[in-house]
Amino acid sequence: MSAHPATPNGCQGTPRSFGNALPVLNEIRHALEKLVTTGEETRIDLSALPFGPGDLDRLTDWLGTGEVEATVDALGPTRVQETAIPGVWLVDYHNSEQQRLTLHIEVAPVPEILRPQPQDLADALNQLDARLEQETGTTPLSS
Amino acid sequence: MSAHPATPNGCQGTPRSFGNALPVLNEIRHALEKLVTTGEETRIDLSALPFGPGDLDRLTDWLGTGEVEATVDALGPTRVQETAIPGVWLVDYHNSEQQRLTLHIEVAPVPEILRPQPQDLADALNQLDARLEQETGTTPLSS
Repeated sequence: MSAHPATPNGCQGTPRSFGNALPVLNEIRHALEKLVTTGEETRIDLSALPFGPGDLDRLTDWLGTGEVEATVDALGPTRVQETAIPGVWLVDYHNSEQQRLTLHIEVAPVPEILRPQPQDLADALNQLDARLEQETGTTPLSS
Repeated sequence: MSAHPATPNGCQGTPRSFGNALPVLNEIRHALEKLVTTGEETRIDLSALPFGPGDLDRLTDWLGTGEVEATVDALGPTRVQETAIPGVWLVDYHNSEQQRLTLHIEVAPVPEILRPQPQDLADALNQLDARLEQETGTTPLSS
């Protein structure tokens, strides 16, 4: 994946400051170090920070776009976008009316919302057994 | 996520057999047990199996559709679809001409293609440091 996304000012020719995005960049840097050295994951709630819309756009431009994008269709759609920095993800939560609920940066190998919980896996095995037994026992995988 | 997708025959009223899909369902079941008990992941290359197109459709219908779908845009697009069974994923590899290269079932918390390698994370930290130093040192996050 590209580790060199377009620099924030591209071709626009208008000087811009990173404003409130700079502390977040430093926080991302420390979170990534923690992930690499200890495996600990970090979530940063961007909605809770005093961003102007311009700051947020400059931050996401700077982080760039990686190879993976995902959608999780639960109560409302959640859009997951890998940034150009491996291990740094944007996770954008919406409600069923497509309004943004919150926007997180997640520093993790894979965002938590893409991973089943261990209990889900154990339940899945029981459900699969039940379905297989039903279909192969009474109607042998046909109907 | 729904663990009860539509049964394969839906409203079609035509009896169907699972044919060559049945051994695969049993293989998935054993792979899921192995994942739950030992954490070991399994990949099943469906392209290598003697499926007719009908068998493959019946298998994917039976597995159903989960909440997560993802696209990985590398050499060609790879489409990842969670099935209705947590931990069981379809991973569909295409080349840049949109031709299917291979189709895998992956039994894992998250398919490998969605996860960065540990070395990618370490490299990412170095790249991020270099970019931050460059921008805050010479042009302090503005231009």
